[in-house]
Amino acid sequence: MKNHFKLAVCQMNVVDNKETNVKKAVDMIESAARNDADLILLPEMFNCPYDNSKFREYAESAEDSATLEMISETARNSGVYVVAGSIPELDDGKLYNSSFIFNRDGEVMDVHRKMHLFDIHVPGEISFRESETLTAGDKVTVVETDLCRIGVVICYDIRFPELSRLMVDKGVELILVPGAFNMTTGPAHWETLMRVRAVDNQVYLAAASPARNHELSYIAYGHSMVVDPWGEVLSQAGASEEIIYAEVNSSRIIDVRNQLPLLENRRKDIYRVTEGSGQNKD
Amino acid sequence: MKNHFKLAVCQMNVVDNKETNVKKAVDMIESAARNDADLILLPEMFNCPYDNSKFREYAESAEDSATLEMISETARNSGVYVVAGSIPELDDGKLYNSSFIFNRDGEVMDVHRKMHLFDIHVPGEISFRESETLTAGDKVTVVETDLCRIGVVICYDIRFPELSRLMVDKGVELILVPGAFNMTTGPAHWETLMRVRAVDNQVYLAAASPARNHELSYIAYGHSMVVDPWGEVLSQAGASEEIIYAEVNSSRIIDVRNQLPLLENRRKDIYRVTEGSGQNKD
Repeated sequence: MKNHFKLAVCQMNVVDNKETNVKKAVDMIESAARNDADLILLPEMFNCPYDNSKFREYAESAEDSATLEMISETARNSGVYVVAGSIPELDDGKLYNSSFIFNRDGEVMDVHRKMHLFDIHVPGEISFRESETLTAGDKVTVVETDLCRIGVVICYDIRFPELSRLMVDKGVELILVPGAFNMTTGPAHWETLMRVRAVDNQVYLAAASPARNHELSYIAYGHSMVVDPWGEVLSQAGASEEIIYAEVNSSRIIDVRNQLPLLENRRKDIYRVTEGSGQNKD
Repeated sequence: MKNHFKLAVCQMNVVDNKETNVKKAVDMIESAARNDADLILLPEMFNCPYDNSKFREYAESAEDSATLEMISETARNSGVYVVAGSIPELDDGKLYNSSFIFNRDGEVMDVHRKMHLFDIHVPGEISFRESETLTAGDKVTVVETDLCRIGVVICYDIRFPELSRLMVDKGVELILVPGAFNMTTGPAHWETLMRVRAVDNQVYLAAASPARNHELSYIAYGHSMVVDPWGEVLSQAGASEEIIYAEVNSSRIIDVRNQLPLLENRRKDIYRVTEGSGQNKD
């Protein structure tokens, strides 16, 4: 890991117009790069309203994606890593909620497809069933960069502590979470979840939400944030569009792990988190 | 599970006098029972200051324990379950940090010995090494009562998400945590950890701390609390001695799991938490 670098999280105001969204993403990446960010994170579904009735209309295939071409070009021109939140990805007739990860040359390093589909029904508050339209991915996504080793999950994925654990066992130092919690789950769980995943695994974590837009059917909570390995919130957005920044510092990870040796103190004789067999979804 | 019952958490002011501590525990149990509590939780090291230099002096063996006899008699007389926080237990020359669990007849149902020993060194703030004096237990503790199925962990044990996961897979509906976080880890982590373990596993969780006592070498944070399966704090103590109460309701667990089917949505084809082999502590 580079000793330290600047991370930017873009809390975009996503609207119901793809071109506007992509232009906004490009502008925010360029702005963050001018402010010396080396790694820039966009929110979940940054080019599309988070709405089952919109995903197919907005979807693009990896081979023919105006959205991804623009992001690639911007990453290359600015010389920054971009973890491009997510877009609805069309592949062989199926839709995925997919995060494309670009290096400084604008090349796709890896893709994370959301592996836990978000189905919620809180009567009178919020109902949403991703599984009606989307297909789940089935890969743990860990990428080596010249800054640090990053793990990428999407929104609901962060609710499953096993996944962050597998990532830290693969050497991840920074977990990136494009996510769109809502006005029920956001106030109830967003900050505590993000903080505890960082605390338990003694890693940095950054979460990028769309800004709160009351014109859309699904209203994102906002509050994009960066958390350090002690669980301290280094930077947090409000509800509106903005870019937040934080310094990621490898020596902080080492210090915290020396002070409280949580990872060493695990009782692997009593329990283990293991990779599944790929079978038996239950 | 009984449909609902009242839980009491005793935030005792533990002092450097065993008899005073045990008398206080008895008084608090009797008081909680008079207030219709069915299950009463005491804090970690309720009969002894949390101090490596005191554990051996205060320790008792299970077979010959004035402390446990008093608690047993009080549980029987009041007809309540008591999860007796913890005491330093002497067994075959070794010391354990042990939680004895009593039924309404005052019989010991099970014992949880803290399985993760707390070693921390935050320069200028807090240093403590349990491993200097204590031996770790090696059992996941789940107890069936006529109220619900409970899991018992002690303090540092709660920092390891695998353990709560194993418990929920064994049908635990309420996790009990006698604990003594300090003035560094308490403000930083206590509430977020307790809330997220409840949220991730969609169970109730109750944590009992000693009251804050500045006369002792290790100052407990206090803030004993009960959290519901949505992560809502139902009841929380301040820093001083008090008993807090909360209603545990099985239908709330069912509702939350229906609204957000987290446990069902786990991807066991990708990851699993399994019980260890008992070998390879690493």
